[in-house]
Amino acid sequence: MAKRNIQVCMTPELFSLYSDNKSIVVVIDVLRATSSMCIAFEKGVEKLIPVSTVEEALEYRNDDRNYILAAERNGKPVNSFDFGNSPQVYLDMDVKGRSVVMTTTNGTKCINIAKKDHDVVVGSFLNLDAIANWLIKQDRDVILFCAGWKGLFNLEDTLFAGALVDLLITSNLYDNSCDAAQASVVIWNSAKSDLFSFLKNSSHRKRLSKLNIDSDVHFCLKLNQTDKIPILKGDVLVVDNE
Amino acid sequence: MAKRNIQVCMTPELFSLYSDNKSIVVVIDVLRATSSMCIAFEKGVEKLIPVSTVEEALEYRNDDRNYILAAERNGKPVNSFDFGNSPQVYLDMDVKGRSVVMTTTNGTKCINIAKKDHDVVVGSFLNLDAIANWLIKQDRDVILFCAGWKGLFNLEDTLFAGALVDLLITSNLYDNSCDAAQASVVIWNSAKSDLFSFLKNSSHRKRLSKLNIDSDVHFCLKLNQTDKIPILKGDVLVVDNE
Repeated sequence: MAKRNIQVCMTPELFSLYSDNKSIVVVIDVLRATSSMCIAFEKGVEKLIPVSTVEEALEYRNDDRNYILAAERNGKPVNSFDFGNSPQVYLDMDVKGRSVVMTTTNGTKCINIAKKDHDVVVGSFLNLDAIANWLIKQDRDVILFCAGWKGLFNLEDTLFAGALVDLLITSNLYDNSCDAAQASVVIWNSAKSDLFSFLKNSSHRKRLSKLNIDSDVHFCLKLNQTDKIPILKGDVLVVDNE
Repeated sequence: MAKRNIQVCMTPELFSLYSDNKSIVVVIDVLRATSSMCIAFEKGVEKLIPVSTVEEALEYRNDDRNYILAAERNGKPVNSFDFGNSPQVYLDMDVKGRSVVMTTTNGTKCINIAKKDHDVVVGSFLNLDAIANWLIKQDRDVILFCAGWKGLFNLEDTLFAGALVDLLITSNLYDNSCDAAQASVVIWNSAKSDLFSFLKNSSHRKRLSKLNIDSDVHFCLKLNQTDKIPILKGDVLVVDNE
């Protein structure tokens, strides 16, 4: 039986080179967009609309459906929005059945790039095992799409890609011939005993540290806090009910 | 004293994001273009003209100066050229004082991308310590520019970038805040005890293996076979005589 293909795309700038119009794409922006999405669904959010610009998000402001508006740029919440992209705001609030409109510096843009030619799901450490098991059931090629930082490679998304490649390869169903996938696993294996320390010099943790949100970083590096798989249907993320 | 900046650009597709119009750029294409360049100068080549296309290389064919013409595409020598990009052809031939015109799938293109706004030197495992020591003397910011494979990330160039970052960081003169530089060092540290085995599943080693040139791979992974620093002057690589 031919093995499935698994590729890691390290930044959005490279996505057109990996895109094949058929693989499932897992969008990864663990600090913090895709972590927030996973935990939002865990806490009962029904729909999440990822948009690329602040302007698009603002169009939902006067809608009767009472959307939660979440917008982050450069690590900070955008003025006048309900939320930025901290995952922890969903913990203390009743969001059951609500809809969220979200725009972030990197992650939501990647969803909108990938959706043109691919089925899209959302991954983070918070749903690591769940997404690995879900992918194994699909019998499809996979592209792990790291959001990076403004087009640049980043450590935390590649680290998560490595964790996911490691789980998928263990299933023996995937061919591990992508150099970036192999590199990601090396990085994961070097880091997995202490993710927080491994990232201490990473550019984004430094960026977040200045904003005093180390507790968000700790939260986003917790494994397996939800079994929800956010999947894109049209332009809206919902929980996959397979 | 402010530390110098060191960045690793993992593929040519990302170069515009790292380019700052002032850093020295080290072009890295260890399998095999930049290894061939280093050994060509070690064996006495006087000038090496890196060109981007086969057509440009052919323009030198009828020149009185009797250029050696080297052209590789997809791992193979191009028909009717003297050489492909195997470094070992320079070992058995008297090339003292000769000039080489070279075009390769990835490496020579990177030199021509970088030269627009940067001073350019050429690195490979064959001149690792020499280039580290040379950079330390320059007191400049550095971009390590991995050629990759047709725009994609590759393991072998990132591995070499990690080896060079590791040496530079040890000097305590460089700030290691680039995520890609940190990732490269992790990869280097995982691989350095046996580079050949580490690369056994890499896409390019598989590609070369089909072409039966594992001995070139062994050769390119030897450390410190030359102290020559190929440096670009105008459009021509020569040995730096500092």
